[in-house]
Amino acid sequence: MRLEFFYDTVSPYSYLAFEALCRYRDRWDLDLVLRPAFLGGVMKATGNAPPASLPARGVYMLRDLARLSRYFKVPMSFPEDFPTNTIAAMRLLTIVAADHPDKHEATARALWRRYWGEGKDLTREVGLGVACDEASVPRTALQRLDDEDVKAALRRATDEAVARGAFGFPAMFVTDQDGEEQMFFGSDRLSLLAHELSLPWLGPAP
Amino acid sequence: MRLEFFYDTVSPYSYLAFEALCRYRDRWDLDLVLRPAFLGGVMKATGNAPPASLPARGVYMLRDLARLSRYFKVPMSFPEDFPTNTIAAMRLLTIVAADHPDKHEATARALWRRYWGEGKDLTREVGLGVACDEASVPRTALQRLDDEDVKAALRRATDEAVARGAFGFPAMFVTDQDGEEQMFFGSDRLSLLAHELSLPWLGPAP
Repeated sequence: MRLEFFYDTVSPYSYLAFEALCRYRDRWDLDLVLRPAFLGGVMKATGNAPPASLPARGVYMLRDLARLSRYFKVPMSFPEDFPTNTIAAMRLLTIVAADHPDKHEATARALWRRYWGEGKDLTREVGLGVACDEASVPRTALQRLDDEDVKAALRRATDEAVARGAFGFPAMFVTDQDGEEQMFFGSDRLSLLAHELSLPWLGPAP
Repeated sequence: MRLEFFYDTVSPYSYLAFEALCRYRDRWDLDLVLRPAFLGGVMKATGNAPPASLPARGVYMLRDLARLSRYFKVPMSFPEDFPTNTIAAMRLLTIVAADHPDKHEATARALWRRYWGEGKDLTREVGLGVACDEASVPRTALQRLDDEDVKAALRRATDEAVARGAFGFPAMFVTDQDGEEQMFFGSDRLSLLAHELSLPWLGPAP
C-alpha cells in the first residue's frame, strides 16, 4: 500500500504517526512516501490556527502528548521554544528528499528527536548539521538551504497538500479499493485508516 | 472505574464515544456518569470554534464521520441543519438526569439517533417529545424546559466543564492511579484512556 505522508517536524502528532507507520511497514507491505511540507503555510492558506493557540487546549496538549508519548513509545518532552520556525529544517528535508532519498527517514527522525525528544534548536545551521551527521547526510546539503529551487519545491509541496485537502499535519493520503483518494488527518486516525483498508491494527507500538 | 462524560447531542464525536463506552461498561466495570452540558457555552467561554467552521476541515469532517460511523458501528448521516441549537435538548436531558436518572442513557441515545442517525429536528418540542416516548420518559418533562432551576443546572454543568479544563466535547474525566483527575477529549482518545488506565481495548465495537 502506498501512503503519502505530509509532515513538518514542528508537529508532534506527525512525529508519533511517522514512528507508528515505520513500525507497520512490513506488516502492511507499506510504501511510505514522506512528503516534507511547511505547516505554517498550510495553516495560513486554510485559515487554521495551531491547537495550542487556544489556552485551554494548550494546557490539555501538554498532558495529551505526555500520555501519547507513553502509548506510542516515542520519548518526548515539550520544547521550551514551542512553536518554532521550521522553514530551514523543512528546506533541509526537501534537499535530502531530492539528493539523498535513502537518508530521508533518518534525517526526519533525527530532527524530530532533536526538537521533540531533546528540546533542542531546529532553527540554526549548527543544529541541522548535527542532524545531518546523525543521518549520514553530508553537511554540504546545508549549502543549498537558500537555493531558489529548494524554496520553490517546498512551496509546491505545501500548495499540493492544501490543494488535496490538508488543513494540518500529518495529512496522510491513500487510495481506497474504489480507486478514490482518501485523506486521514492526525496520529489518532491510524486505527481508522487500518479499519477502512482492512489492515491489521495492533496499536501504535505493536 | 468512574468516568464523567460531559456531552452535548450536537456533537457527533460525543455520540460515537458514548456508544463505545456503553459497550465497555461490563468489561471495564465502568460507572459511566453522563453529564449533559451546553457545548455552545463551552466554545464561547474558551474562545473555541466548531471544527467545521474551517472550510477545509468541514469537508474532511464529512468523510471522517462517514468512516468513523462504519468503524464504531453507529449509523450516522450528516444532518442538513448542522449545526443546530441544542439548548432545548440539553435542558431536557438536564431534567431527565434529575427526575428520571434511569432513563438518562436512553433519552440521550434517542436524541442522538434522531439528529445524527436520521437527520431530524432537535429544536422543537414535537421532536423532543418523540425522543421522550422512545425513552419512556413522561412528556410532562417537557413542561419544565423553561424552568429557572433547569436553566441554572445546565449553566452550572457547562461552567463546571470549563473550570475543569474542557474546551470541547466529549470531555471525559477519570481519576488515575495517583488520585489525580485526568481529562481525555474526543472519541479518538478512548484507546489512549484504556492504555493509561491499564484497561483492555478491543476497538470501538468489541
